[in-house]
Amino acid sequence: MTDAEAQLIEKAGRKLGPKAVITDPKEIEPWISDWRGRVHGASPAMLAPASTDEVVAIVRLAAEHRVPLVPQGGNTGMAAGATPPADGSAILLSMRRMNRIRSVSAENRLAIAEAGVILATLHEAAHDVGMRFPLTLGARGSCTIGGLTSTNAGGTQVLKFGTMRALVAGIEAVLPDGSVHNGLSGLKKDNRGYSLDQLLIGAEGTLGLVTAVALRLVPAIAARAVAWIGVDSPAKALELLRFLEARTGSIEGFELVPQDSLDLVLRHVPGTRAPLAGAHKWHALVEATTADPASDVAAELESLLAAAMQQGIIGDAVLAANETQAEAFWKLRDAISEAERAEGQTLAHDISVAVADMPAFITEAAAKVEAAFPGVVASGFGHLGDGNIHFHVRAGSHAAPDWYDAEGKKITRLVDDLVTAAGGSISAEHGIGQLKRAEFARLAQPGRIHALRAIKQALDPLGIMNPGKLVP
Amino acid sequence: MTDAEAQLIEKAGRKLGPKAVITDPKEIEPWISDWRGRVHGASPAMLAPASTDEVVAIVRLAAEHRVPLVPQGGNTGMAAGATPPADGSAILLSMRRMNRIRSVSAENRLAIAEAGVILATLHEAAHDVGMRFPLTLGARGSCTIGGLTSTNAGGTQVLKFGTMRALVAGIEAVLPDGSVHNGLSGLKKDNRGYSLDQLLIGAEGTLGLVTAVALRLVPAIAARAVAWIGVDSPAKALELLRFLEARTGSIEGFELVPQDSLDLVLRHVPGTRAPLAGAHKWHALVEATTADPASDVAAELESLLAAAMQQGIIGDAVLAANETQAEAFWKLRDAISEAERAEGQTLAHDISVAVADMPAFITEAAAKVEAAFPGVVASGFGHLGDGNIHFHVRAGSHAAPDWYDAEGKKITRLVDDLVTAAGGSISAEHGIGQLKRAEFARLAQPGRIHALRAIKQALDPLGIMNPGKLVP
Repeated sequence: MTDAEAQLIEKAGRKLGPKAVITDPKEIEPWISDWRGRVHGASPAMLAPASTDEVVAIVRLAAEHRVPLVPQGGNTGMAAGATPPADGSAILLSMRRMNRIRSVSAENRLAIAEAGVILATLHEAAHDVGMRFPLTLGARGSCTIGGLTSTNAGGTQVLKFGTMRALVAGIEAVLPDGSVHNGLSGLKKDNRGYSLDQLLIGAEGTLGLVTAVALRLVPAIAARAVAWIGVDSPAKALELLRFLEARTGSIEGFELVPQDSLDLVLRHVPGTRAPLAGAHKWHALVEATTADPASDVAAELESLLAAAMQQGIIGDAVLAANETQAEAFWKLRDAISEAERAEGQTLAHDISVAVADMPAFITEAAAKVEAAFPGVVASGFGHLGDGNIHFHVRAGSHAAPDWYDAEGKKITRLVDDLVTAAGGSISAEHGIGQLKRAEFARLAQPGRIHALRAIKQALDPLGIMNPGKLVP
Repeated sequence: MTDAEAQLIEKAGRKLGPKAVITDPKEIEPWISDWRGRVHGASPAMLAPASTDEVVAIVRLAAEHRVPLVPQGGNTGMAAGATPPADGSAILLSMRRMNRIRSVSAENRLAIAEAGVILATLHEAAHDVGMRFPLTLGARGSCTIGGLTSTNAGGTQVLKFGTMRALVAGIEAVLPDGSVHNGLSGLKKDNRGYSLDQLLIGAEGTLGLVTAVALRLVPAIAARAVAWIGVDSPAKALELLRFLEARTGSIEGFELVPQDSLDLVLRHVPGTRAPLAGAHKWHALVEATTADPASDVAAELESLLAAAMQQGIIGDAVLAANETQAEAFWKLRDAISEAERAEGQTLAHDISVAVADMPAFITEAAAKVEAAFPGVVASGFGHLGDGNIHFHVRAGSHAAPDWYDAEGKKITRLVDDLVTAAGGSISAEHGIGQLKRAEFARLAQPGRIHALRAIKQALDPLGIMNPGKLVP
């Protein structure tokens, strides 16, 4: 612990009380590594403010003592963006005690939630007033509103409702100079200069600390229909999506699953079974929803799928007969990563290209990677309708135990090169954090890197906001 | 003309040819004042690049000679954001020759338009492929995509589709260092750091020059229904909007018109007539649309309005019987500013508060302004559903000819104070430009001003991008 850190911790304890300053290593330990256990950090203390005023006090101390802060929500990120540096040179800032939902209004279609509110808690609060916060993802029971905002999180309902960027109506944040940016007024139109709200979304805590967020709500779901569909190729899957979107506004989830991934799930995840009898090279999981109790979304989806089958777009399809089956279909999709881990070493890439280009990209990139690294298995699954798939490369059964460390970087470089050549993004929804920083620096347009560095330096000249993250 | 300007003009002429460098004062003259004739600028030349490469060359010359550029599209802005300084110290940059629509795709639901493309031209191009670019406003025949983007323009369809911020899928821009930011790939998900696209939207050309924009398209309208409705108060109008929105997704326009404004239009605009027989204190203009040819949007709106009348929400209503009548209803709304000008001096304020607060704000603010400045007439009209009204104050019949100059600033200060006290914005959709800069400086949170200045200084250290605009 440096002298500066010791002084900050001592002053914070006096100002904020013992609840807000945790120095017991056992209490800190669960939070200093990223949840996948890939990156291990260290911190002499974990500060846990309970209010915006307390965050202001902490930022002022951080500036005074030149000690950087590493903000953290549920610690469920995929890019180690909330993990402190290993040398203990920064202090962990848990936002989890800021967990009040300040307001939920069906009339205004807005909720104001503090940064530490867990996504599932917000879902319930919206549901209680007959509304819905549509963004959801696997970590919903742990991830927080502050983290979701700071990483511009996506998930499975982006197709219809967009990422956090589209769902945030305003942000309250403590800026590096200790001032409070208050954008919570819920104005639908406000053209007073650069949007600090939009700048903070996806900034991974490097420009300020998000303390509360105004979030758009939509009417609650009255009914949903979930279908599992067999198709010949990603191109056919996209054709199906276009076919459906041209005929209904109810499609809100559209996930692509290769047979290979389905096989892994069926092999490793207990209680799973294939929805369709025959074999299909690819599968689409489609969810249609309606907020209108009078609308029969299942009948609509069924008749559209029958038409798609008649036109030769799809091979086979089955509608979930009830909610249990619908959940079982989703489980097949959600368990892919778990099944891959059970099978062996896997390299994950969260990438995007233009939606229209994705079918060709999946097929061609997988072939190139498998040719360049014999024995590996490459496949893409996920959010086809967003042009965002998780392009995973598995070691294959014969790989050496150190395959991940020995080959991983080379394979990732090839994938990232292919994505960049296709005009895509090496980080579609997971962010840059620590893990993608080098690749971002290698592949980004130089003018872009320059602009990002200039903005970071301008707003955080002392470098106290989440050092070593995002900005190369 | 300074030596630096002369050198820049000479070099630009050699590099870009005579078409791109206009020095004839007669050709420049129509563009150096804002369209309302309030602010008069001067410039020794007007540069008119025809490609992104030419814009890069101009930015490099501007940086080399430290001569600022004032970008301009259709010159239809309301805040003099495209008018050069009066001392001739900056060079006008017309983007109007960059007028290519690079692509329109119904399949991708995207168009890529250069900065100088006129909004109406984009509307037609989208229509030609069976799609629609939903943003529209009075200046659609002159305003350009670059200007709309740089001012985060709104208009009358924001209720359903949002402002430019929601409709821009990506931006190509030349940054102050001469590098090109290319965000046109149309990625639906991209989390590679701060969003330069979002930073450039609404930046009024102070951080870089928008050269092309990828824009989201929506399915073309199959049918629309337009209704004129009499209500007792703004609160009843909002109640009607909530009533409709809870029952249909088809409402895309909802404008509030006071009887007082309608009277002015009927008095001063030839060929107009009142849609309803009886007298009503307030009116709502409602537009419902559908992209589904099978949906009878007129019948739906009619039955919803009948139900609203039965519940005592509205006093009377009439549906436009055909497109001609629908256009006539819209004309009553669109001609308010014209009618006010015919009546006498008018002070316009483009303001917003939270939607739920707007009915009370309109009534209370008008009463306060009329009490503080006896003889004036204050009223609000416009986009109630966006929490954005145009709060206009008329001199009244007995005001002195110099009323606007003598009293204007005092009245505007009171209006802006009332808006700020209500947590609202002194610029909802028109931007800050030159005209609102002093009030913005007076009323903004100090931390916000500091952040805006820091960003401006970081990205444009030489101050060559639209000097004297937006940033106080």
